[in-house]
Amino acid sequence: MSRQLHLNAFLMGVGHHEAAWRHPRTDAGRVADVRHYVDVARIAERGLLDSVFFADGLSAGPHARHRLQAVFEPITLLTAIAGATTHIGLIATASTSYYEPFHLARLFASLDHISGGRAGWNIVTSASDAEARNFNRDAAAPHAARYGRAAEFVEVALKLWDSWEAGALVLDPASGIFADTDKIHEVAHSGTHFTVQGPLNSPRSPQGRPLLVQAGSSPDGRAFAARYAEAVFTAQQTLAEAQEFFTALKSDIAAAGRDPGQVAVLPGVVPVIGGTEAEAVRLAREFDDLIVTDHALAQLSQFLDRDLSAYPLDGPLPALPDPGTVEAHQSRFKLIVDLARRDDLSIREILRRLGGGRGHRVVAGTPEQIADELETWFRQGAADGFNVMPPYLPGGLEDFVDHVVPELQRRGLFRTAYTADTLRGHYGLPQPVNAYARVPAAV
Amino acid sequence: MSRQLHLNAFLMGVGHHEAAWRHPRTDAGRVADVRHYVDVARIAERGLLDSVFFADGLSAGPHARHRLQAVFEPITLLTAIAGATTHIGLIATASTSYYEPFHLARLFASLDHISGGRAGWNIVTSASDAEARNFNRDAAAPHAARYGRAAEFVEVALKLWDSWEAGALVLDPASGIFADTDKIHEVAHSGTHFTVQGPLNSPRSPQGRPLLVQAGSSPDGRAFAARYAEAVFTAQQTLAEAQEFFTALKSDIAAAGRDPGQVAVLPGVVPVIGGTEAEAVRLAREFDDLIVTDHALAQLSQFLDRDLSAYPLDGPLPALPDPGTVEAHQSRFKLIVDLARRDDLSIREILRRLGGGRGHRVVAGTPEQIADELETWFRQGAADGFNVMPPYLPGGLEDFVDHVVPELQRRGLFRTAYTADTLRGHYGLPQPVNAYARVPAAV
Repeated sequence: MSRQLHLNAFLMGVGHHEAAWRHPRTDAGRVADVRHYVDVARIAERGLLDSVFFADGLSAGPHARHRLQAVFEPITLLTAIAGATTHIGLIATASTSYYEPFHLARLFASLDHISGGRAGWNIVTSASDAEARNFNRDAAAPHAARYGRAAEFVEVALKLWDSWEAGALVLDPASGIFADTDKIHEVAHSGTHFTVQGPLNSPRSPQGRPLLVQAGSSPDGRAFAARYAEAVFTAQQTLAEAQEFFTALKSDIAAAGRDPGQVAVLPGVVPVIGGTEAEAVRLAREFDDLIVTDHALAQLSQFLDRDLSAYPLDGPLPALPDPGTVEAHQSRFKLIVDLARRDDLSIREILRRLGGGRGHRVVAGTPEQIADELETWFRQGAADGFNVMPPYLPGGLEDFVDHVVPELQRRGLFRTAYTADTLRGHYGLPQPVNAYARVPAAV
Repeated sequence: MSRQLHLNAFLMGVGHHEAAWRHPRTDAGRVADVRHYVDVARIAERGLLDSVFFADGLSAGPHARHRLQAVFEPITLLTAIAGATTHIGLIATASTSYYEPFHLARLFASLDHISGGRAGWNIVTSASDAEARNFNRDAAAPHAARYGRAAEFVEVALKLWDSWEAGALVLDPASGIFADTDKIHEVAHSGTHFTVQGPLNSPRSPQGRPLLVQAGSSPDGRAFAARYAEAVFTAQQTLAEAQEFFTALKSDIAAAGRDPGQVAVLPGVVPVIGGTEAEAVRLAREFDDLIVTDHALAQLSQFLDRDLSAYPLDGPLPALPDPGTVEAHQSRFKLIVDLARRDDLSIREILRRLGGGRGHRVVAGTPEQIADELETWFRQGAADGFNVMPPYLPGGLEDFVDHVVPELQRRGLFRTAYTADTLRGHYGLPQPVNAYARVPAAV
């Protein structure tokens, strides 16, 4: 079978467009109703998508007046969705900055057990001082230190997930042997950030461990992805930039001794779908017209780590430091600065360009036009699939599932039935090898 | 309406009896199958019980060869159960010793949102060194220090749950006001263990906060319960001891300035149910005969913080320190020592007495006899209800729901229909007052 797309539905409130909740196509009251998220996940499953995904942050943020990133904690929300779905993968963001690895490894093992092998973890670091202040600190750690902790965190988690071999749970009533302790291992990790004896208090889960996802595209983030990620979410505005990122990351993965074919690179795309191109463009404009400038400006100020309220809206961005020197989320910083320079945008224009997907590419058009875009990026070495970010929910995902997915299927670019039961299976990845499992002795 | 019992189903694997999984009435393979727990919770809901409860620990423990306390992480497991039930309360143990309050407050808020107001938190401290070694420490903190951290932890969590007033989520499309920031409060906690700015990144949940449950009966534990608990799980072997505990705790609650009528004291009971008394006693003996002595002895050694393997099984316990001086779980230590002395038990006899419920009272008899016992304790000032611990699952709970519950209903001691939709409602508790909510101005 020829190579096919992987599609993840990135879900947020009643849609990714920051003003979606104000538009008559959404029911804003549903942002705090778990049934909304269950309904949307079922739509994604009807469309045979690989997975759904919820992002996360650890503070209410400065934008609560206009928006809240996540009303529900993602792991519990995905656990609720697990019971109402049968196949679709369930990916949650969780930050390595303030959790203990034992707690988080266990939560993901539990989600993987409950969902029958559909758990995925988007590994992030927490960059904002507002988050740090909820966890006994004044300020976030510097970029490199955050990634150092993240790497050790993942190492500990991997050891804990391997600490029970498959088949360790014997449950033999006759002998009274509940578990084979020869197949349960202390991990005895002792490092810079963590000292963890193990084993985990959970039998090995169906996937062995969750699918590991990474989403930062800075040099540190890319190095981390090359080492650990099995899927990568990325924001790329142009085909050329996406190709460059794709090629560089795949090369990094190979250099790290891993198979680049086993890491799915998934740029974000916000599909604004209309029966005609004009209708789609009109809908996109309706959303943009509902943007609350103060809110958008506050969000942009946060991305750029600079208070922009003193600058004229119709003027350009002020001079900003080199992206490589900032301690905020570097890759998004760079994307916004590049976008503004390339298209010579005023601050007001930047706000509209970011409103749909906070830097992810917005594509407005007919289902065929959107399929064309996805196919182009897929065939021209820019993507293994996409992080699909519906501008409004559930309608924007329904349109994607009912009109874009069938078009992709007609082109042979997407599955016409699930062929696996696990998230790892959907992404075509093998079951991970357990580092503690002994090679069986020759008979 | 006259005072009625509150009944919580304490669920563990395929039953509380430590050898239940070896008995033909259980299917041991279901301990790692989420559907088993969902099925059991539905049985409890069919019986109109107030709540189900899962205990927890943070290490695989020394007993994995024979038993594992919890295969699933309780908050995620209860989230899965939430979607398959409509009324029953959902109580999870979570330790304050190694979590950050922000993470845990958020998980419980999310469970409360997802379940429509059915979350409860059994607040514990982690006493074992095995747990400490999974969290960057060599040994557990001393008893008093653990409770000191627990109290501050709960204070922070209470502030975080109050940080969003009801109605803060405005969601007004016309004005673009997503939330009323006048109703969202920083908590600005700065204490010995935690510095937390807040607010929580979650709107106020249906119950305002989870039901707070406490389960330690040591002096520190009782003081903690008097201050915070809304339900108390306790292990009591005799009516006289239970009455003494009940009276003392209610008095402590009043002394702490709270209404003793709004704290439900729930002693544990392991009901071994038979069609005749002889049948019930025979079933209890069958379970006891399946106890693996090595395992039971290791567990007893842990409870008593003393390696007992060198002592003759048919001799008495060795001399042990005063319970008030030990750093392990003090109340269980005291219960076991008292039990052994009162009934002049050998170590082997202690193992059988603890096999059913690890120190909780085992009652074998007909449904009427069990109802008699519950009624006696309830009417004679020893209990507001019970922590029902089926010796085997699901059968032991089915028998309780199908035979004991109807008997209690006939006696007017238990509800015949749910009269509330929330856990707090089942326990007859009011909605908590928000500490940050301003008194509305007089018009």
